[in-house]
Amino acid sequence: MAYRKLHHAVLLGIAALMATGAGAADKKAEKELPPKPSVGDVLKGSTPGDWRPLDPDNTLYMELPGGRVVIELAPDFAPNHVRNIKALAREHYYDGLAIIRSQDNFVVQWGDPHEDDEQVRKVKSAQKTLPAEFTVPLANDRHFVRMRDIDGFAPQIGHSGGFPVGRDPKAGRTWLAHCYSMVGVARGNESDSGGGTSLYVVTGQAPRQLDRNITVVGRVVSGMPLLSTLPRGPAPMGFYEQPGQQLPIGAVKVAADVPEAARSRLEVMRTDSATYQSVLEAQRNRGGPWTKYTPNYLDLCNAQIPVREQK
Amino acid sequence: MAYRKLHHAVLLGIAALMATGAGAADKKAEKELPPKPSVGDVLKGSTPGDWRPLDPDNTLYMELPGGRVVIELAPDFAPNHVRNIKALAREHYYDGLAIIRSQDNFVVQWGDPHEDDEQVRKVKSAQKTLPAEFTVPLANDRHFVRMRDIDGFAPQIGHSGGFPVGRDPKAGRTWLAHCYSMVGVARGNESDSGGGTSLYVVTGQAPRQLDRNITVVGRVVSGMPLLSTLPRGPAPMGFYEQPGQQLPIGAVKVAADVPEAARSRLEVMRTDSATYQSVLEAQRNRGGPWTKYTPNYLDLCNAQIPVREQK
Repeated sequence: MAYRKLHHAVLLGIAALMATGAGAADKKAEKELPPKPSVGDVLKGSTPGDWRPLDPDNTLYMELPGGRVVIELAPDFAPNHVRNIKALAREHYYDGLAIIRSQDNFVVQWGDPHEDDEQVRKVKSAQKTLPAEFTVPLANDRHFVRMRDIDGFAPQIGHSGGFPVGRDPKAGRTWLAHCYSMVGVARGNESDSGGGTSLYVVTGQAPRQLDRNITVVGRVVSGMPLLSTLPRGPAPMGFYEQPGQQLPIGAVKVAADVPEAARSRLEVMRTDSATYQSVLEAQRNRGGPWTKYTPNYLDLCNAQIPVREQK
Repeated sequence: MAYRKLHHAVLLGIAALMATGAGAADKKAEKELPPKPSVGDVLKGSTPGDWRPLDPDNTLYMELPGGRVVIELAPDFAPNHVRNIKALAREHYYDGLAIIRSQDNFVVQWGDPHEDDEQVRKVKSAQKTLPAEFTVPLANDRHFVRMRDIDGFAPQIGHSGGFPVGRDPKAGRTWLAHCYSMVGVARGNESDSGGGTSLYVVTGQAPRQLDRNITVVGRVVSGMPLLSTLPRGPAPMGFYEQPGQQLPIGAVKVAADVPEAARSRLEVMRTDSATYQSVLEAQRNRGGPWTKYTPNYLDLCNAQIPVREQK
């Protein structure tokens, strides 16, 4: 009973942190502002056609002790790396490897802890390294819808196929942006020194300086807390120092290889839908009584890409 | 022995994620680029005058089961709230309260779990609520140094006294920006409904839409992982549902009230120093063999404000 009351009180309290409301200067702060649809309102009003299921052929399941991380792959933006990562998963390359790094406000990385000793995991049919796919031809972002918001890292920004995208029409190139939950391919100094045997996910403020420097292959659409809450590693750059600190990876599987009954039934909002544009606008200019000032601006990496259980 | 080798290998591997190197188009990727000073190089070259110790009168220690969180307060930007939060600490208001919320990629919040029941913690000499200090007069950012980088949320951005700042010269106002590790005052719908009894820290992508909507009072300069790795709460917006899920706060103290021998001996780089400008430039345009493309741009909330143990 007390908890009910507490819960109510607390939810009230944190309206403070949801920032929904339409614009007004500080001086007008106490003037009640006209309500606007919130992201929640827009989602409630969405139709089945606004959503698409994940494609099992381009979805990875990383099974961790705490549960499943679901990664949507982006073959349009890294065709060769996506193919190779699926081949690595299918030869069970990742099974039994580990999370080797967690750096606060940056990334969590996984791969072979024995990459440099005699117990190194051998790559079989897949490739150890591949030519870089840091950017791809503009034609690859077939579903690009531009955001009007300015961006310091790219001439144009927006979304394509459910991913945050930067693009440079003059150079004729497009690429996936390093936003929270995006997954990339670790490499050494040479552009072609990675291939997917070690991957990382962004767990902090978007390190957009990595854009066009690393092949980005997809996005974690479910299970981020399994990675973002991992203890930070004590060694430089968040590496774990002892095997005991490393979280073991049970298996990484292509969803299509998992019996249907055991698959995660998730769907993602179509980022080329009118409803998604309303989601963006609901974040750019918030409605309701709480907000006293609205920026009429949305940062690419603050744009929520809605994911839900399939209905 | 194997660990030594492993550690070496791994550090090599993650040069990939440090993105240090000067600009080049993808096509020139394999051309070796001229080295540039990294942030580490700049720090090595810094002089004692580039650093300042934390002011014990404006530093809070939040003692958690896992260790100490050190918060630098910003009296220039929220004079009344900083005074009130210190008064709350000195009447032991926070002692024995709890972390009540952890929402992935957003915030961790603490306060009174009983705020709405008969066990509510009473405020004594301090105030329960205060008029908002969402922004302050331009004159308050006495140490402002502007960044040249564009920003979608503020006409001008930069740093003042060790904090990331947005400002609007036309409106004559300045404010602290909601970057990772910044601490703000939770409130209800009314601007003056907060006072510091419940505070939050940013643990994800900078929610800059909160700028000018909440009174921001300072920054966590040490101990972020104690907050950022907390299990995410199962209730809406990351609230914990049961007291057992809430992390207890041992005590919150003003550093000046702690015996000198028990104080954290930290110093922060002066953000109005020439050396700090070199830190920013080292992030805007990285040097070394790894980077193939450099944006010549730095996001306000990716700008590192160096903190170190006092020498």
